[in-house]
Amino acid sequence: MSLFITFEGIDGSGKSTQARLLAASLDARLTREPGGSPGAEEIRRLLVQGDAARWSAETEILLFTAARRDHLERTILPALRAGEVVVCDRFADSTRVYQGTRGTDGAGLRAKVDMLHAAMIGIEPDLTFIIDTDPATALARGQARGGAEDRFESLGLAFQQALRTGFLALAADHPDRLCVIDGNRPPEVIAQEVAQRARAALSGGSDGRT
Amino acid sequence: MSLFITFEGIDGSGKSTQARLLAASLDARLTREPGGSPGAEEIRRLLVQGDAARWSAETEILLFTAARRDHLERTILPALRAGEVVVCDRFADSTRVYQGTRGTDGAGLRAKVDMLHAAMIGIEPDLTFIIDTDPATALARGQARGGAEDRFESLGLAFQQALRTGFLALAADHPDRLCVIDGNRPPEVIAQEVAQRARAALSGGSDGRT
Repeated sequence: MSLFITFEGIDGSGKSTQARLLAASLDARLTREPGGSPGAEEIRRLLVQGDAARWSAETEILLFTAARRDHLERTILPALRAGEVVVCDRFADSTRVYQGTRGTDGAGLRAKVDMLHAAMIGIEPDLTFIIDTDPATALARGQARGGAEDRFESLGLAFQQALRTGFLALAADHPDRLCVIDGNRPPEVIAQEVAQRARAALSGGSDGRT
Repeated sequence: MSLFITFEGIDGSGKSTQARLLAASLDARLTREPGGSPGAEEIRRLLVQGDAARWSAETEILLFTAARRDHLERTILPALRAGEVVVCDRFADSTRVYQGTRGTDGAGLRAKVDMLHAAMIGIEPDLTFIIDTDPATALARGQARGGAEDRFESLGLAFQQALRTGFLALAADHPDRLCVIDGNRPPEVIAQEVAQRARAALSGGSDGRT
């Protein structure tokens, strides 16, 4: 049975680890955003490197949606049509929350994100895990990783806290699809809860979605 | 007096030459699409190089709109606000015609282009010159130039002919803004007509727009 599962959360929340563990546990196709297809990975380089002010919020929304469209066409949909389970590290909810949290017109940007998603993407995951981790812990973890892909982390703790609030609000709006997981626990404990809920969704049980 | 003038036409039509000549004649800011700002030039490289099937039409529309938004914010609008005349080699009409001419769902793609333009760009040029050149002549000229930026030219003569039809249809729909110029003449003769019409528009005369 094909199923499209996504992981969301702030940088350093542990969601990438959890995505990898779940994909291994389910023998699923593991992918990520931005990226996940050769073209989308090229767009990713424009998005995650460089100065935080490199792109305006509007240009960024368009680039994220372009990368998502390519990833959807070339990786996600072919795998789902072949009956695979797809586990994706970040998807549209990240764009909704990150852009909706930016600057002085978050609501206006969020409306643009929703419009672009409806017109150019059109699908939602079957199940989304939000790995909810203390923002200070997550930020320290993200910064300790270092590397060139620090454009969003450079925005600091207040931004990470606002993102957390945004993810929790999104989960409250869509309790049928989004599942909040306490990320302040050892990875193996989190993985156990995630796998249990994912298997329930795969077997069609409703408790995977609550 | 600020004025936003664009040049459109098929590849090899001579529009870039005419844009350059007009910008020199008016001491205007010369720019181009895709590109025209550092970020948009990076997106341009993704768009004009590589295989014709590298991106789907939908992904391409999103990338063009992302590049246009950056170009608009960082180059066009600041120049217009400073009272400059801006001359741009290609703008939104190219996306309308190129995407509306592709594949089996040109009308559906054109609707998406219009929706993205309305939501994310929002402005039209004051005056647009369509350099209308015989497609076979233009294609031969474009191919003789060679180079890596041949993604669209590789689509062949039938596509160039369909593009010409698309540009003429757009001009018929917007006679107040689009001005069709016979491109099958020596460049200096074309330049004279273009400069005359642009100066009329700059002085507020209505014959620059008909």
